[in-house]
Amino acid sequence: MSSAAIIGGGVIGGGWAARFLLNGWDVAVYDPDPKAKRKIGEVIDNARRALPALYDHALPEEGQLTFHDDLELAVKDADWIAESVPERLDIKQKILGQIEATARPDAIIASSTSGFKPSELHEGRSTPERIIVAHPFNPVYLIPLVELVGPEATVEKAQNTLKSLGSYPLHVRKEIDAHIADRLLEAVWREGLWLINDGIATTEEIDATFTYGFGLRWAQMGLFETYRVAGGEAGMAHFMAQFGPCLKWPWTKLMDVPELTDELVQRIADQSDDQSGAYTIRELERKRDDNLVAIMRALKTRDWGTGALLNQMDQKLSNAAPTPSGYFRSVNRSVPVDWTDYNLHMNEGRYGQVFSDAADAVMIAIGANADYIKSGQSYFTVETKVNYLEECVAGDKFFVDSQIILADGKKLKLAHKMCAEDGSVIATCEQFLLHVDLTTRKSCPPREELEKNMITMAEIHAALPALLES
Amino acid sequence: MSSAAIIGGGVIGGGWAARFLLNGWDVAVYDPDPKAKRKIGEVIDNARRALPALYDHALPEEGQLTFHDDLELAVKDADWIAESVPERLDIKQKILGQIEATARPDAIIASSTSGFKPSELHEGRSTPERIIVAHPFNPVYLIPLVELVGPEATVEKAQNTLKSLGSYPLHVRKEIDAHIADRLLEAVWREGLWLINDGIATTEEIDATFTYGFGLRWAQMGLFETYRVAGGEAGMAHFMAQFGPCLKWPWTKLMDVPELTDELVQRIADQSDDQSGAYTIRELERKRDDNLVAIMRALKTRDWGTGALLNQMDQKLSNAAPTPSGYFRSVNRSVPVDWTDYNLHMNEGRYGQVFSDAADAVMIAIGANADYIKSGQSYFTVETKVNYLEECVAGDKFFVDSQIILADGKKLKLAHKMCAEDGSVIATCEQFLLHVDLTTRKSCPPREELEKNMITMAEIHAALPALLES
Repeated sequence: MSSAAIIGGGVIGGGWAARFLLNGWDVAVYDPDPKAKRKIGEVIDNARRALPALYDHALPEEGQLTFHDDLELAVKDADWIAESVPERLDIKQKILGQIEATARPDAIIASSTSGFKPSELHEGRSTPERIIVAHPFNPVYLIPLVELVGPEATVEKAQNTLKSLGSYPLHVRKEIDAHIADRLLEAVWREGLWLINDGIATTEEIDATFTYGFGLRWAQMGLFETYRVAGGEAGMAHFMAQFGPCLKWPWTKLMDVPELTDELVQRIADQSDDQSGAYTIRELERKRDDNLVAIMRALKTRDWGTGALLNQMDQKLSNAAPTPSGYFRSVNRSVPVDWTDYNLHMNEGRYGQVFSDAADAVMIAIGANADYIKSGQSYFTVETKVNYLEECVAGDKFFVDSQIILADGKKLKLAHKMCAEDGSVIATCEQFLLHVDLTTRKSCPPREELEKNMITMAEIHAALPALLES
Repeated sequence: MSSAAIIGGGVIGGGWAARFLLNGWDVAVYDPDPKAKRKIGEVIDNARRALPALYDHALPEEGQLTFHDDLELAVKDADWIAESVPERLDIKQKILGQIEATARPDAIIASSTSGFKPSELHEGRSTPERIIVAHPFNPVYLIPLVELVGPEATVEKAQNTLKSLGSYPLHVRKEIDAHIADRLLEAVWREGLWLINDGIATTEEIDATFTYGFGLRWAQMGLFETYRVAGGEAGMAHFMAQFGPCLKWPWTKLMDVPELTDELVQRIADQSDDQSGAYTIRELERKRDDNLVAIMRALKTRDWGTGALLNQMDQKLSNAAPTPSGYFRSVNRSVPVDWTDYNLHMNEGRYGQVFSDAADAVMIAIGANADYIKSGQSYFTVETKVNYLEECVAGDKFFVDSQIILADGKKLKLAHKMCAEDGSVIATCEQFLLHVDLTTRKSCPPREELEKNMITMAEIHAALPALLES
């Protein structure tokens, strides 16, 4: 069991707390703000409904969450200390001094700063080698990116921790104000402010260029890869030749900063109300989270970018899954929000997917795994019968137990029982699969090794009571 | 039947051609480049595998594609003329003059220019009121955004056309160099070039900040809505107060343009090769398209942003769907790429979704539509049996015919036959549904009107031959 200390419990600190907690870490929070407990609780509630939905396997049991009035008590046992106090160098330096005095010698002290460089954070510290920047992105429990800047050895250690949390650590090799991402964000933010200041467009119009336009591109390929593809067969160099000259044209406002007068701030706030005022911030947070979950899950099917990252995590979670004696525990997960329909419960079609996943798990268990499929053979389903007994809704945890009821040459019959956390039956399924040759797409007997496994398992299962009444 | 002329057949012109063609328009192409025919053909091939996958109903029949050596012949009958020649004002002005001389008086002449203002395009023209900017985004057949700038009446007409093509027209109300989106893109592009020039990060590292970070956010909420939510309960004004001061900090490089020396261009090209060189441009295009389709389809389940746009289009396509005499033609579509699995065919679970969609269509046909469900009653499926007879792969067109085989009070039994375009059977399904009260979640008799419709349809269906052999 590992433990994290969260120093400063705003949106960012709360997000860190949630990511650690839901990945099985104990989390100790220090924040003198009396509202911190409520605020962090709300962030964690959001995380509980969104983060598990990213994966097709259950996360570990949640760790323990504690609140402390005393920074020392929060920090002293922690493996990872996340500093997320306000973005002022003097405040950060003072808090880092207090953390340093109490933290374990091998602890990672990670500042969430958006802009300050490690060298600035290190001023006056006695153990700067422990102190790094680990800059996350809101919502911290969903967005994988964390920029790491600072002493090499600690950055390396931090990378392993972050990967185990499902994050994507990016080592920023040269320190610079605002690291990498926020430099790009700041550039676009300035230009956006100018467009509003000059009355060219409203917040809603500007946002439409993201959500209906380049934002879609950037969720799956970045700036350079997108342009590489746009350059066509001639690639990046061609693109640079074609659009390079535009850099000299007046396509952005010069770097002047529009003065944030009361009038401009009010105009932006008003436009933002017009655009999004129909929803409370809490509702918008959930819509954002559900959208992000759906987008990232969609990329899982492509095994690309964030989706590939989720698939790797699923691999780890699946290896860790318990297999109770007897039947296969073939699925163990919760209902993701994108599986629900207009009846506000899990759509009938998704039961089909659950039992398809269950069959995959059985296949893997008997040796028909990714390598076997790559070698040219697999199983195809030829018949399923599903009985729907109970509804389930987004966030509901469930598991599937599976029994081999027939294993005879190329024929494989499975029974599946899908149960809620309390063991009550949600649905049952009988499935008939045929072993096939992927070249001819026709049925054929399984290879010797697979057949042996299959028969061994089938004999064990034959000795167990029938999972489903017939 | 409407018709479009495409003047200039590069990536953008080809994308326009594809979007019109696949929405049933006739398309006439003029491009003196002898390679134009091959290039446009490749873009249209890409579009054919990606665009129909966005929708859950079939698109109209493709229009006719013709190539012309003579600009006049291409232009003279067109309702919409898309100018996509190279980004040089003198070339554009010359071509617009030629178009103007031949186009129908009521034709829309739309330039794809990334940067020029309508007033610049209008210089020397005799009918400037017909000439607007309609600036699309690559890949034009998938990305919905089109910026419209220019004379009000023509912009209005153009909006209707673009909406009918599934695009998202954004009226840029004040003309400005580079319109709206490219100003933001240019700002981020400059900063990206500086980061490489200064050796801070590689193209791959910069791209990671998009795909694992803020790109995910921007696919579903823009710059301002994202920050509104990040500001928490206090909203936009709070966010501005918190992060406003950063604008004065050195978080972006001043607006100097890094000189595009041969050395810098080569460095970027090399880094881009390291990052993406494992794939050809053609492969990257398909990965990009599949990713975009998956992301946009994911947002459909949230009915948000691009997803809401696709749902509106589906509504239109579904109203237009033919219902042959006798059975219900309950589904008519192609297999989207995100429905396939490691066996490279449509995953078993998705058959469940197809038959769930088929049941929805029957429900709507007998009056259990969205309004009925909103009033508190619906149908839940309690049992399905699926037989899988043939495989299908991404892009395959198919339809489902459905027959009511029992309609008795709260009980409804349906038979479905899923067929390939040529009528061969892919899968069959029997489905048992119960009418339910959505408050108690228990079965109950349907309302009178619904029951009447149901019985009428059931009687008609009882007179037809059984869809499935029992």
